[in-house]
Amino acid sequence: MQTTHYLDDLSVGQRFGSGRRRVDADAIRRFAAEFDPQPFHLDDAAARDTLFQGLAASGWHTAALTMRLFVDSEFQPAGGTIGAGLDGLQWPRPVRPGDELHLETEVLEIRASKSRPEQGMVKARVTTYNQNHEAVQIFVANLVVQRRPA
Amino acid sequence: MQTTHYLDDLSVGQRFGSGRRRVDADAIRRFAAEFDPQPFHLDDAAARDTLFQGLAASGWHTAALTMRLFVDSEFQPAGGTIGAGLDGLQWPRPVRPGDELHLETEVLEIRASKSRPEQGMVKARVTTYNQNHEAVQIFVANLVVQRRPA
Repeated sequence: MQTTHYLDDLSVGQRFGSGRRRVDADAIRRFAAEFDPQPFHLDDAAARDTLFQGLAASGWHTAALTMRLFVDSEFQPAGGTIGAGLDGLQWPRPVRPGDELHLETEVLEIRASKSRPEQGMVKARVTTYNQNHEAVQIFVANLVVQRRPA
Repeated sequence: MQTTHYLDDLSVGQRFGSGRRRVDADAIRRFAAEFDPQPFHLDDAAARDTLFQGLAASGWHTAALTMRLFVDSEFQPAGGTIGAGLDGLQWPRPVRPGDELHLETEVLEIRASKSRPEQGMVKARVTTYNQNHEAVQIFVANLVVQRRPA
């Protein structure tokens, strides 16, 4: 059973892992057909003549898979995983068919809310790695996290 | 027919519009079931007791729909829409069932590459609006764009 993390339970520097999720060519093409229908996300042959030099997942597919890994991960913010936004996001290398992704999350900052005493904000760096431990996506998220009820 | 935009065709302050895309409760639940299975994205009754106070789309669903609107929009970067990353992203308000989204994109910065003379980087702010012209997502993207062949 997973523990719920209230704002008060977290500390700067704390790290959380995740499970693993494999992405195959069919899933890459299916996501792309709906949300990012460009040749390098749809067809391996067409992708060879592009910057990607072969089929690659849409960055937004990587982001969506990251969210799924996060929701199922060891880090269970009280009130749910609710992002106000990101400070930045990079896709340093493409996700390829057959890649298996996992996350490492590090708490960077914790701030109680002045206007809403029942909650606070947590800044966390979420890095998505492939099976060779190469980073495929890095972002810093601003999460709304509930405080432990008095 | 859509025009292709080489780096050399773009100017700071240039703006592009998009088509419109409606999102219904089924699509919200379907995306959430695969990528963000939390109560406030899956079930209207369960969502009432959360921060969202009713069914809301996953922010990553909004991001994916934004990509689809972008790919189909007036802005057609040469070489395809390829993002190196984002400088920041905010979700100022939730996307609700029945919302109809559209984009406004503004070119903020254009930079030729020193190491790769055939391409450059474009910084662009992409704002996603609902049918009431309320911003539901704002990000600044760093796009790789090809230069016009000599």
